[in-house]
Amino acid sequence: MTDINQYSITEAVKKSFHAEDNERFTFLLEKMLDHLHDFTRETNLTHDEWMGVLNFLYDCGKISTPERHEFILLSDVLGLSALVDMINTKGGSTEGSNLGPFYLDDAPVKELGQDLGEEREGPRVLCTGIVRDTLGHPLPGAIVDTWQADSSGTYPIQEEGQDKYDLRGKFTCDDRGRYYYTTVLPKPYTVPYDGPVGNLLRAGKRHAWRAAHLHYIIRADRMRSITTELFFENTDYLDNDAVFGVRNSLITKVDRVRPEDSFDFELERRPDARLTYDFVLAPGE
Amino acid sequence: MTDINQYSITEAVKKSFHAEDNERFTFLLEKMLDHLHDFTRETNLTHDEWMGVLNFLYDCGKISTPERHEFILLSDVLGLSALVDMINTKGGSTEGSNLGPFYLDDAPVKELGQDLGEEREGPRVLCTGIVRDTLGHPLPGAIVDTWQADSSGTYPIQEEGQDKYDLRGKFTCDDRGRYYYTTVLPKPYTVPYDGPVGNLLRAGKRHAWRAAHLHYIIRADRMRSITTELFFENTDYLDNDAVFGVRNSLITKVDRVRPEDSFDFELERRPDARLTYDFVLAPGE
Repeated sequence: MTDINQYSITEAVKKSFHAEDNERFTFLLEKMLDHLHDFTRETNLTHDEWMGVLNFLYDCGKISTPERHEFILLSDVLGLSALVDMINTKGGSTEGSNLGPFYLDDAPVKELGQDLGEEREGPRVLCTGIVRDTLGHPLPGAIVDTWQADSSGTYPIQEEGQDKYDLRGKFTCDDRGRYYYTTVLPKPYTVPYDGPVGNLLRAGKRHAWRAAHLHYIIRADRMRSITTELFFENTDYLDNDAVFGVRNSLITKVDRVRPEDSFDFELERRPDARLTYDFVLAPGE
Repeated sequence: MTDINQYSITEAVKKSFHAEDNERFTFLLEKMLDHLHDFTRETNLTHDEWMGVLNFLYDCGKISTPERHEFILLSDVLGLSALVDMINTKGGSTEGSNLGPFYLDDAPVKELGQDLGEEREGPRVLCTGIVRDTLGHPLPGAIVDTWQADSSGTYPIQEEGQDKYDLRGKFTCDDRGRYYYTTVLPKPYTVPYDGPVGNLLRAGKRHAWRAAHLHYIIRADRMRSITTELFFENTDYLDNDAVFGVRNSLITKVDRVRPEDSFDFELERRPDARLTYDFVLAPGE
């Protein structure tokens, strides 16, 4: 290993690892080394650039807290999170999209038909649809776990004095696989841009806005869970969402509810608009 | 951008950046995106693996302090630092090697012939040679900036109660380009392995030892500075240095000094051994 040069060093580093009993770890490590070293050779990376990258990662670490994971944000704005979602979407199921930083796994259980908006003013939208398997069969008892920003683009968890469990809920689908609830429509918001990732966006002359969306995790027995988002036709940033979360198949149409419209389920509040979306789950492993 | 898939997303992310006025930034960014996304596609990275990598980076950030840069250490053990040194070594000049974490730019100025060992017991080695340009001409007035571990493998800066400027010095070469001083021989030591990078080494069944070495930065007017290390023949870890710092051209022979040997320069202490190494600098940019 003393006669290594800029071409042979990659194999030398691979050979320094001895995790043959862990094939997947070794595979990932060697692929990572190939790409990391190839990048460095192809760009003739200078010492200053190398140190700039390491200091950028250092700064991402310094601003991170349990509530703010700057490396996830970095992954988001580089399209890496979206790519991992795409790779892991099973054929026939609803496309995955960003989990984002605001998920709480202990969101309150809600009854079908409840309103998530609480005392908030403003128009209500009915969110409804059926959770199905890839053959089209409804999945009664499927769990629809949703969370969202409010009509000013803020998550209650971000605001001092608000209840962090607000605008969240876990619904259990009825015996026809249906979910239905009302809520306020969320507004677009920016990802945090006061840290190193924000500096990267500025250096690249990019904005930090996300298209307005509702978050969902859909689960059902013996099915593969999906984490996704729903967007709304003709709203801002669909074409340049800061984290590349939008897919055509996830854009919904919000229709006005007319006075004569009726529903075959009970709702806590009469909605002003409605969107319908059926989620599709693939079989579990 | 709403009809992106796992293949087209890479171009979509590139197009979201608009730093055309900074060609090098754009070049580095696009190469990085190619490699990052290719790695992800080639490995079919799972959500758990993706989150594992991001949490590893998060943990590297958490353990880092101004005195401990875990991302530099990561770069070191992945051979990235060595690769950057190799790429940036100019033809004909001494090969570069790791800067390491213990450099202080305000090390004390020392006189040629001084002993760096201070009150330490143990055999002295004379370090001497000539600083030259790539045509072989000596470079009078060149600065030899050196720092090292002691004979138990510890840098004074690491130890409570020791003077952090100990075992360091900046020498100015004489009118023949010569440097000469005596010191104690350093011992091998381990890189810090109590953090995430240590966990990576353990997962890969790798040790954390560095071959014993002396650190140098060599500077001269109008020449390109070099940062490098000198190693010693027949010592441990030359073939499996944890940070891939060893090069054949940087391994020196330490010869015993016999009673009848004399020197044509003044030394503060009579050495027990000597090593000779000429540093070569390429012209500056």
